[in-house]
Amino acid sequence: MIIATDRAKRPSDFIRQSVPPPSSKICPFDYGHEHKTPPEVLAYRNSGSRDEPGWRVRVVPNKFPVLGIEGDLNRQGEGMYDKMSGIGANEVIIETPDHLTTLGDLPEKQIEEVLWAYKERVNDLKKDRRFRYILLFRNHGEAAGASLEHPHSQLIALPVIPKRVKEEVDGARQFYEFKERCIFCDIIREENRAGSRLVSETERFTVLQPYAPRFPFETWILPKRHASHFEESDAPTLANLAWILRTTIRKLDKVLERPAYNFMVHSAPVQEPDLPYYHWHFELIPKLTRVAGFEWGSGFYINPTPPEESAKFLREAGLP
Amino acid sequence: MIIATDRAKRPSDFIRQSVPPPSSKICPFDYGHEHKTPPEVLAYRNSGSRDEPGWRVRVVPNKFPVLGIEGDLNRQGEGMYDKMSGIGANEVIIETPDHLTTLGDLPEKQIEEVLWAYKERVNDLKKDRRFRYILLFRNHGEAAGASLEHPHSQLIALPVIPKRVKEEVDGARQFYEFKERCIFCDIIREENRAGSRLVSETERFTVLQPYAPRFPFETWILPKRHASHFEESDAPTLANLAWILRTTIRKLDKVLERPAYNFMVHSAPVQEPDLPYYHWHFELIPKLTRVAGFEWGSGFYINPTPPEESAKFLREAGLP
Repeated sequence: MIIATDRAKRPSDFIRQSVPPPSSKICPFDYGHEHKTPPEVLAYRNSGSRDEPGWRVRVVPNKFPVLGIEGDLNRQGEGMYDKMSGIGANEVIIETPDHLTTLGDLPEKQIEEVLWAYKERVNDLKKDRRFRYILLFRNHGEAAGASLEHPHSQLIALPVIPKRVKEEVDGARQFYEFKERCIFCDIIREENRAGSRLVSETERFTVLQPYAPRFPFETWILPKRHASHFEESDAPTLANLAWILRTTIRKLDKVLERPAYNFMVHSAPVQEPDLPYYHWHFELIPKLTRVAGFEWGSGFYINPTPPEESAKFLREAGLP
Repeated sequence: MIIATDRAKRPSDFIRQSVPPPSSKICPFDYGHEHKTPPEVLAYRNSGSRDEPGWRVRVVPNKFPVLGIEGDLNRQGEGMYDKMSGIGANEVIIETPDHLTTLGDLPEKQIEEVLWAYKERVNDLKKDRRFRYILLFRNHGEAAGASLEHPHSQLIALPVIPKRVKEEVDGARQFYEFKERCIFCDIIREENRAGSRLVSETERFTVLQPYAPRFPFETWILPKRHASHFEESDAPTLANLAWILRTTIRKLDKVLERPAYNFMVHSAPVQEPDLPYYHWHFELIPKLTRVAGFEWGSGFYINPTPPEESAKFLREAGLP
């Protein structure tokens, strides 16, 4: 990652386009349109039965899945190449029946239920031993790849461990073999010592701008206590995470004027046991810069904002 | 890479936004504004002297460089992290004095001179032994990261071999160690045999859609004769490349209605000798899809268009 200080930017230099408030058009994720999605696989309800209104959080298979859940992997060669069938699951976590809100504006309790839905769906899907990795992520705003504005997250279960995950897990394992310490635990200690890249902390979480961020205002939320698998989080941890996730999104919304963003849950491969060397965490990326030829050609990212500066803006955002 | 056939798309499904025709506003790359850029490092001229009008192609340092050319690398630790100074070169190849055109619309001869400028600048910069990799790339259209509309390409010389390049070169070397053949030469043979992903060929080049493309309409231009370093191309090769690059961009322009795009020259690290296992080539990526949470979290790319279909659209574009 390259910090290009000649280009150093204040938050206002980035604001291309705030995510517009949701419109009130009819949407398949609204109450009364449950039949427009595939049947639900999980819902937390006040009333109603399956595929009826009355739910608070609802999880359904993606109607246009990237991968299909039926069949065998069918690994084979094709000429000099290798291929396999696209077996997997692709689910949508509908975060609220209220079309006209966003995750950062939801009550803390509602976000906590969204996180419970994440946990429950992963724990259910990991029973299927074909799935080696389950990715939870959220795209907010069209610029960040969201095609529907109704607040939702997604889950994709994969029959292989993705390259980027493998690199992160392998890197962490190599560090552990050398030092006998988790690199993420070390990062939390180091950032607490240095202080300049810290955004905030709670009883159970540390929020920081990483040392060499690919993107301006890239933000990590890490549990203070070592744990490799997000889906094993207990109730107090999810409650505390809901609070800090909400506050962090609100800080980004305030400083960057409601940007489009992505967040991804980085967690250990689901069929692995507890790992002493890997440490689950959330990564949030506000969509402020464009990926162009240099990044595609090199894998390097040019970031005009040093993390010490973005951390300071977020610390001073005037939220707890 | 995941081909999501349930989402298969025709070119017209992608067309979000054609790159608008250039406006006639004053630009630092126009004739008469040469003093607004740093002094030129190369120019091909009809008339005039240094930093005056009369040039056909002009190369200048980037006024807002990502990396600075002066100083030492100064590798050092910072707490648990590593850092080094951002030493490098960042140059702009101004492809024509005509603000109101685009690369695909330039005469073949003009594109040939642009390619000569690429070659000359790399050969000059590689004499500086601090530079381990030199990346040539082009961003066309704001959606693909271009901040100026005047036709231009860029060059970045780096003191390290980028991770993505290292992976490609290492992968090719491993294939060679196992098979004693260049994997790119194998790909050219295989694609000529299969035919379904071929776009076109010339005396010296093969144009194809790769087997597992990350992006719809991702297009590679490969020299038929094995060569690891672009900058060692001879005059007939550059002339033939100008022709096929122009035709390929015009095909993409026609089928996808003048999309934003990036292209990158993939070439061997500049301080390496001729390599039997690496094969330089161009990669063109029209900007049709958005990179979102799934891609950031996994490193996988979801591509709704099988390469056999995009190749067919390009073959049938009605251009030679």
